[in-house]
Amino acid sequence: MTLIENGLEILTPAQCTALLEGGTVGRVAVTVAALPAIFPVNYTVLHDQIVFLTGEGTKLRAAVDRAVVAFQIDHFDQTTGSGWSVMAVGLAEEITDPDELATAWQLNLRPFASGDRSHFVKISPEFISGRRIL
Amino acid sequence: MTLIENGLEILTPAQCTALLEGGTVGRVAVTVAALPAIFPVNYTVLHDQIVFLTGEGTKLRAAVDRAVVAFQIDHFDQTTGSGWSVMAVGLAEEITDPDELATAWQLNLRPFASGDRSHFVKISPEFISGRRIL
Repeated sequence: MTLIENGLEILTPAQCTALLEGGTVGRVAVTVAALPAIFPVNYTVLHDQIVFLTGEGTKLRAAVDRAVVAFQIDHFDQTTGSGWSVMAVGLAEEITDPDELATAWQLNLRPFASGDRSHFVKISPEFISGRRIL
Repeated sequence: MTLIENGLEILTPAQCTALLEGGTVGRVAVTVAALPAIFPVNYTVLHDQIVFLTGEGTKLRAAVDRAVVAFQIDHFDQTTGSGWSVMAVGLAEEITDPDELATAWQLNLRPFASGDRSHFVKISPEFISGRRIL
């Protein structure tokens, strides 16, 4: 059964997870100095957690550690007007456990930019939601 | 002169404005029930303000009215690894002035989904920033 809300198809958790696992670039929404901010990141999914790299001293690194953040991916086709969006919300924290770090380095996760990006952050989704344009 | 920070080229305000004016789909970061959330929207730029449609009773409509929000657009090419991201932060509010509404309806702004989308929201950017991957 397909659920419709406000003209959008509501994706199932399984559909959302599959789309998250298939993506490479997402966006993280955080609060920086009491203001909302959105940063694009290259990411991968490991053990149901969203993992990405941040650089030393970046606004993103300072903002995500032990904060509840929103992570979002989408895809839209301007010619057909079709598209979808998936959002995961959960606690973000820097990976510091040596075993977890060893695994993270083996992901061959490409940093978003060529600058120093040596701090892994993981987001543990508390809930995931998704919509598709009909 | 090109400014570089953390391996990313810092775009000038003029470059950011040009990219914003050329886009059609962006994302709005807001707070819903004390949690961060990101919603994709179709938008246009009118008199330096970002204008989009929301539906009656949607989470987005409730969240944006008279709130400071982040609006973001980006473009990434997976094959070349190139891309850019622009973010505008400012006060969002529903358009209620009759003259402004008349102008907004003439924008032929496509709603993001086929459901009821009859409330125009405008974001007045307080600051705009952008980065390009080198």
